Parts: sequence; structure tokens; C-alpha cells
Amino acid sequence: MNVGVALYGLGNVGSGLVEILNARAEELRNARHLNVDLRHVVVRDLARPRRVRPQCVELTRDWRAPLQDAQVDVVVEVMGGLDTAGAVVETALRAGKHVVTANKALIAARGEELESLAQEGCAELRYEAAVGGAIPVLHALRGALVANRITRVRGILNGTTNYILTRMAEERMSLPEALAKAQELGFAEADPSADISGLDAAQKLVILARHAFGRWIPLDAARIDGIERLTPGDVDDARRRGNVVKLLAEATCSDDGTVTLRVGPVELPASDPLAQVRDEVNAVTLEGDFAGPLTFIGRGAGSRPTGSAVFADLVELALLHRSRWERN
Amino acid sequence: MNVGVALYGLGNVGSGLVEILNARAEELRNARHLNVDLRHVVVRDLARPRRVRPQCVELTRDWRAPLQDAQVDVVVEVMGGLDTAGAVVETALRAGKHVVTANKALIAARGEELESLAQEGCAELRYEAAVGGAIPVLHALRGALVANRITRVRGILNGTTNYILTRMAEERMSLPEALAKAQELGFAEADPSADISGLDAAQKLVILARHAFGRWIPLDAARIDGIERLTPGDVDDARRRGNVVKLLAEATCSDDGTVTLRVGPVELPASDPLAQVRDEVNAVTLEGDFAGPLTFIGRGAGSRPTGSAVFADLVELALLHRSRWERN
Repeated sequence: MNVGVALYGLGNVGSGLVEILNARAEELRNARHLNVDLRHVVVRDLARPRRVRPQCVELTRDWRAPLQDAQVDVVVEVMGGLDTAGAVVETALRAGKHVVTANKALIAARGEELESLAQEGCAELRYEAAVGGAIPVLHALRGALVANRITRVRGILNGTTNYILTRMAEERMSLPEALAKAQELGFAEADPSADISGLDAAQKLVILARHAFGRWIPLDAARIDGIERLTPGDVDDARRRGNVVKLLAEATCSDDGTVTLRVGPVELPASDPLAQVRDEVNAVTLEGDFAGPLTFIGRGAGSRPTGSAVFADLVELALLHRSRWERN
Repeated sequence: MNVGVALYGLGNVGSGLVEILNARAEELRNARHLNVDLRHVVVRDLARPRRVRPQCVELTRDWRAPLQDAQVDVVVEVMGGLDTAGAVVETALRAGKHVVTANKALIAARGEELESLAQEGCAELRYEAAVGGAIPVLHALRGALVANRITRVRGILNGTTNYILTRMAEERMSLPEALAKAQELGFAEADPSADISGLDAAQKLVILARHAFGRWIPLDAARIDGIERLTPGDVDDARRRGNVVKLLAEATCSDDGTVTLRVGPVELPASDPLAQVRDEVNAVTLEGDFAGPLTFIGRGAGSRPTGSAVFADLVELALLHRSRWERN
């Protein structure tokens, strides 16, 4: 069967997704009888050079028209930002179209409202790529851990700061030196303030907590500290105590159901699986009352890993859509 | 909706599953509108004392009758062994009943044949618990990694030998001392030969390779070395080189599609996420061409973790069964 897709954004993540679509289209047709029909690709700037070109589809700047195309079943939003991206996701869900997004800022800010819209429109909203890139942590919380009440979620959710902390610990760089190195290698944004301040990790933590505890906690209820004031001396002192400093994002649910969100630099004992996570790698530990602790380690950003997560959501929705369609 | 279940085995794993059913039944009814109706519990020995008692169902030794109950939709086989367990799974699949099993020996030996039977009967066969206990690695290969061609799978798939190697490395115990300690703590079987020889890890590797590369490789095509001949001196030499000795199970797929299975003691650099996995913990690293390496770490055995994986398969099949049922 055919699944019509409109793609919003052809930057880093969008290009990764198109690469995957090109690489796996035939396999998907043969093994799952699924034809992904990429019908529209919406970009902000038509003149910008593109690393990857989708096959058989023109780029457009008109974000409204694709949402009126009845052949579009799934909308993929990987343009980022809140305004246009928010309008795209909202309009798509109201029209009963499924949505896949990688937009952590949007979901952390408006997840609860958008989920309600999805439910009203009998559509599905998925955002695995918004947390931990390629790491399938939301998939696990939704499926493989269904037996478990989750008591705690902890993670290294920001690659830039983990890269910086690794350089500070292993090469005794200062924070500005390590940040410059991260920017040089393309791990850090030109404006890294959301990374350094802990905001980026906190947005992801809001999303994780929703799936771990079934509840949306507003971002401003999280206690957030960044790594701004960390010195190489602090990192070195920790090392002498046998510990490693990490920017840890942690969500806990107490017995009375109170959910607490906390992001900040923490000294972890070297024996903690999260302490061993180096460079720009991300990791999450989920603690289930039956499964025990489960740690997932993988690439938290980048065109191909993030594209991989978006693609998995897209295929899942396509198969779901097909099973509904076959039933009707 | 009601899902009728027949449970075979009320030992370690079966008890964990019944605990979960008791703890989560109400939640499952409320949140997923799913009522798990445990209709039969088949055991080998009626007189054996049981830690956990299923509610409202008598134990029986008759393994045939439950398979003729038309109200049984899913058969859960956690009795172990090849003969009766094999007959149960085979008969269930021929009758078009879905099967969940934790039986690695059975699946490694007869997986291909049983999958064909399942397909003929329009039934599903699931065995997440057979590999890595609570670690949802088959789920990830089937769903979250759908974008990826997997190039390599590596894992610490046997908890007993990992516990022994940890004690040898950290406390300089000899293998017999460490094994005795593992048996004392209940990590090792009375007869640990399948663990020590690498056979247990190889069985799990056969199953992993099937899901990573889409092909069943017979167990006797695997090259298997155990840890029998390892001395504390070997482990110590590795440590001096900055390495850690692990019983590594590894499956690779070359460009021409040849799949190679290998189990044996290997020196890993301390920076490898698998090198940091201590005691009886299991771990798997999957390498996808888009996602990059993904490492999963968690409990590979035990009543509750293994029960958690069996329960997830059971719920997934129940929901799948419901969607078919609703469609008809």
C-alpha cells in the first residue's frame, strides 16, 4: 500500500531521512509491502544548496498546501522552531493526519495540547527522535517495558555538554577551550546557550517523564542548572574521588505520584554505566520495578542517527495506518 | 477484550510472569482495555511448593488439553527443555495459537521450522526473553532500527560467565572459586557447563543473528570457545594492557551476505561500553548503518526481569490479536 508523506525541513535531519528513504524504499516495498510516497518537501529557503535531493518531488516554500492534500497520510516535521513548525503540526493533527517530529522544543512546550489534538482527530503523534537521537527510549517505554512501573529515569541527554565535560576531564581543557573544539567539530551550535544552560536536556527530560510516568510536567517546574560555572578544578577533584562529572537529567516519581525533574552537573561513581559515556554520546537509564535498570547508549544527534529514529516512527505510523485502512 | 492464555511452567520465569499479571491486571484493563484471562497453568510436578500462586486457576500436568481449548489465544512456554516444550510450541502454532517463549535452546535449535509453522497457521511466535532477559533487543531490531542494515552484533549474553570474569578481574579469584561464589548466590546452575563452554551464549547469538540479518544460521556453524582454560594470570595480563576479558558473542554480516557467528573470550579496551559491564549483567551492541552503534545494558536473567520481557511479548500479541479480531 501507498503512504503519502509531506516532509517539512531539509536540513540536517531531513537530509538524513531522505537518504534513508532512498536507501530503503525498495526493501520496504518488498518486505513490508509499503510504498512511501514523498509528495511534498517544504523548506524555508529554496536557494540554499542541499546535500541530498529527494527523488521526483519539487521543493516548495508553501507550508499550507501540502496539509490540504488528501493523499498525505503522515506529516514529518523536522524544520525546528516553534512558530511555523507549531502551526504545521497543529494543522496536520486537526486534519487527522499522523505527525512525526524531531522537535523537542515544540513537544516540551506544547506536547500535552498537541496530544489532545491528535486524539480528537484520531491521529497519532510520534517524536522518538526528539529524545536521545537514535536511542529508542520512547519505543521501549511504550512497548517493551509495559510490565513495569518506572520509578526513575536518568540520562545524559545533551551531546555538546558531554563532549565538553569529556575534554575537561581527559585533557584538562577549560570550558571555553572545550566548547571551541566542539564547535570546530560541528557538535555545538554557533549559539550553544541552550546546551550549556541545561535547557536542551530539560526539554528532553520533560518528554521522557511524560512516557515514563504518564504525565506532562511543565518545563518551568524543572530545576535546571547548567555547566557554566564548572572549572577544570571541579572536574579534577571529582576524578580524584573516583567520580566523573556529568550533566545529568533525572526524573523521579515518588510513592505519592509526585514527579520531580532535575538537570544539573552531578558526580557519578565510575561504576555507573552513565559515567562511562564519553564525548558526544547520549545515554538513558530507565528503572522498572520488574525489569530492573536498563541502560541505552547511542548517538543523540546527527543527520543519520536522528533520521533513523524519524524513519522508524514513520514506518510504524504507516503500518498502523494501513491496518486501520484495511479494516475499513 | 479478553485474551485467553495457557501458561506452561511455573518455575523462575513463570512465577515472575504471574507476579506481573497479578500486579498489572487492573492497569491493563483500564489503560488498554485488555483482560488477560489465565485459563491453564501446566506444570511438571504438582507437589512442588510454589512461591507464587496464579489466581482462580488450578495447576495441571496435562499439557495437551489446554491446547484444545478454543478460548486460548496465546500460549506462554516457560518450562524449558526441548521435548515437551517443543511439542507444546509446535502443537500450539499448528492450532493457530500465538506463542511466547523464553526458551533459547528450543528457538536456537528449531527456530526456522517453528517460524514456518507459525506462518502457516497465521500465528505469531515471540521470544524476546530468550536473549538478554529484560533487554528489549529483538523489539529494537524489529521496530526502532527498521531504517538500518545491521552490520554487526556483539554482546555479553551469559550472566554466569560475566560474573565469574568480574570476580577473577576484581578479586583475583580462580575460575573454580568464582564459579562456587556464583552458585552460592544463585547466578549459576548446579550444572554450569552450558554457561562455561559458551553454548548458552551461542544459542542466544543464533537468535540475535536471525533478527539482525534475517537468516537462521545453525548453531553448529558457530565457532564457540568457553572460558574453561582462562586463568587469573590471563585476566591480569589483559588488565595490565588496559583491557578487560569478556566472553563475547559476536555476529557479523560481510558485504557478500556471509554471516559469521563467534563466541569466545576476548580482550576489550576499557573504553568499549561492553568492557564496563560487570557481574551478572548482560549487554548488546548493535551497529546500524544509519543509527550507528547502540548499546543496551540490563538484567539478562532472573524471575522478574525475564517475566517482564515475556509479559511485553504477551501484551503485544494480545493487542495484535485484538486488532485482527476487531477487523473480522
